[in-house]
Amino acid sequence: MTSGTIYGVGLGPGDPDLMTVKAHRLLTGAKHVAFFRKAGRSGRARQIVEGMLPTGVIEFAMEYPVTTEIPLTDPRYNEVLSEFYAKCTAHLRELALAGEDVVVLCEGDPFFYGSFMHLYTRLKDDVAVDVVPAITGMSAAWTATGAPITWGDDVLSVLMGTLDKETLTKRMLDADAIVVMKIGRHLDKVRDALRTAGKYDRAWIVQYAAMEGQTVQKLADLEGKVTPYFSIVIVHGEGRRP
Amino acid sequence: MTSGTIYGVGLGPGDPDLMTVKAHRLLTGAKHVAFFRKAGRSGRARQIVEGMLPTGVIEFAMEYPVTTEIPLTDPRYNEVLSEFYAKCTAHLRELALAGEDVVVLCEGDPFFYGSFMHLYTRLKDDVAVDVVPAITGMSAAWTATGAPITWGDDVLSVLMGTLDKETLTKRMLDADAIVVMKIGRHLDKVRDALRTAGKYDRAWIVQYAAMEGQTVQKLADLEGKVTPYFSIVIVHGEGRRP
Repeated sequence: MTSGTIYGVGLGPGDPDLMTVKAHRLLTGAKHVAFFRKAGRSGRARQIVEGMLPTGVIEFAMEYPVTTEIPLTDPRYNEVLSEFYAKCTAHLRELALAGEDVVVLCEGDPFFYGSFMHLYTRLKDDVAVDVVPAITGMSAAWTATGAPITWGDDVLSVLMGTLDKETLTKRMLDADAIVVMKIGRHLDKVRDALRTAGKYDRAWIVQYAAMEGQTVQKLADLEGKVTPYFSIVIVHGEGRRP
Repeated sequence: MTSGTIYGVGLGPGDPDLMTVKAHRLLTGAKHVAFFRKAGRSGRARQIVEGMLPTGVIEFAMEYPVTTEIPLTDPRYNEVLSEFYAKCTAHLRELALAGEDVVVLCEGDPFFYGSFMHLYTRLKDDVAVDVVPAITGMSAAWTATGAPITWGDDVLSVLMGTLDKETLTKRMLDADAIVVMKIGRHLDKVRDALRTAGKYDRAWIVQYAAMEGQTVQKLADLEGKVTPYFSIVIVHGEGRRP
């Protein structure tokens, strides 16, 4: 019997129209799909493909045992997640070895800060894994601002809001164009770092880029909190242009 | 009469299967397409869509008057290019004001170091412009390496090989994950900078990512020259992972 393939399919930023032709074909022909979600939620990746999966598709929801309840620095965080990924992987491996193809639904681009990577590294030596790249959330965010992110020789740095303020500030100072993701509870720190780096007035915040409810505004004009998972800060490069 | 729309359509890295559903629909229904090319060449963006355009489509080839003949630092470079973009824009504006939609074919993602940006900034205040994001060449490159580019809090820096060696080295030292584009004649400098930053042994080079003739190898194993336009250096992040 021939083994099946695990497809790590990037769905892009959210708008199904921004999915690749390949992702669309794999999805609409899938017999098995798998996706991550928080317990009690429908799952963002699964939401994107709502109405697109064929009748009778077999769904495997991989429910995170923990997200923010245990601090990242606690060794238990890694243990619990590692066990979880091993369990998910075991099921996917079993399906592939039984000859089944499985489409794993991934938000954004699978190899760019994605959860699929944790399955990929555990599966790639045992079964065929095909990773389908996709438009990143940051591409959707800079497109939404209506201005190019990088010109000429601009240096683009992609930063996580979870970094400490000193690192954020230094990297912001050194970059021409900046993307900050994973903002959520770190918004005040990100604002402070941008101010110290002298780039606060040029910063934009895009929420729900290429999704329903997309908002685009200067960060300085933002009042209140941001959506924890779908907020991206953008500072455009100002490089060479004729 | 209603004005038409200029669509800046990202085609992605090259494989038509990695084009978005939206790009595919706009292309296959286009009455007018426009694209950049070097004089005497068919044009990379135009090649990607070969066989996909409808019969009778009207093509507007925008031929660069100069690329590497005049040094970037020579003021004439900017003058010549600026005049060229103004001429291209005038034609596109005329079409749109006459009620025609035009699909401008863009390699990669239009707002990420793309040539379309030079048309966009000159058109956006006069006519409707719709920018369709796409998979970047760098996404295709890191996917081709078979390893995720960024994990956890990794800082990703995107650098151009055209930067001076000191800047390249500093930015390489400070980043966890690195992408270097526009390598071509700058290959030796990029190698030197990676060595000084202590990251040479972790560097990969991908040529023609997601195109015919794709190659993936450790940079240390590369002999000879690289393809000037479709070479991307990748250094993977090694951040937190359970």
